[in-house]
Amino acid sequence: MHPNEALFANEAFYLAFAQADYDAMQRVWSEQGELICIHPGWAAITKRDEILASWRGILGNAQQPAVTCYGARAVSMGDCVAVVCYEEVAGSVLVAINVFVEEGGRPRMVQHQSGPCGSPPEKPSRDQQLNG
Amino acid sequence: MHPNEALFANEAFYLAFAQADYDAMQRVWSEQGELICIHPGWAAITKRDEILASWRGILGNAQQPAVTCYGARAVSMGDCVAVVCYEEVAGSVLVAINVFVEEGGRPRMVQHQSGPCGSPPEKPSRDQQLNG
Repeated sequence: MHPNEALFANEAFYLAFAQADYDAMQRVWSEQGELICIHPGWAAITKRDEILASWRGILGNAQQPAVTCYGARAVSMGDCVAVVCYEEVAGSVLVAINVFVEEGGRPRMVQHQSGPCGSPPEKPSRDQQLNG
Repeated sequence: MHPNEALFANEAFYLAFAQADYDAMQRVWSEQGELICIHPGWAAITKRDEILASWRGILGNAQQPAVTCYGARAVSMGDCVAVVCYEEVAGSVLVAINVFVEEGGRPRMVQHQSGPCGSPPEKPSRDQQLNG
């Protein structure tokens, strides 16, 4: 898998999150692989049905603040690609790692961990993003 | 790599941490792979020399409380193995994912992320650990 494919899959994950699109979120997660999902402050979830149930709860929560992602960078690890990025949520910043493997010819998520970040890099301005 | 090999490597990582053994910590981390290290609350570090410098600071800090690991579980992801576990530090619990790839015939760490966990699983008693 080319690292750029994982970056696109990472964007699809945050789009599903931002649009509270549970069906799209289901398609992001691997169906064949072993999985780990750690929401901020939560214990690890490793069963696919429990991971999807957690996302159904989060995406169905009208109080869930909008989440945007910036600073995504892909890091190849064997035949996995990890994407490290920052999540802006209600004025706070979290740091996340999302790991993708190829399944059926496209990247699927097998790992997500997000936690608080006290010293995040600055979010690039819109101009920098377009030119970067 | 057999998942058990990653569990042993994970133990070596926490032993190096507990013993503040910088040389052992250096040997844990991959020399050839791309890396990500996220200490609790920190931004991501992706350069090996900066990751090792961060560990040199942490291991050399006399105020650093002891860290013990429990509940480790290995999850295969392509040719990587992720170990999810809980870190007990000064009465608080963190949740961590540590990812290993094979390098030179043994597992080396390519990813570490640790963050707060508000609802960790209970630490097994000594008896349960021996019998589990």
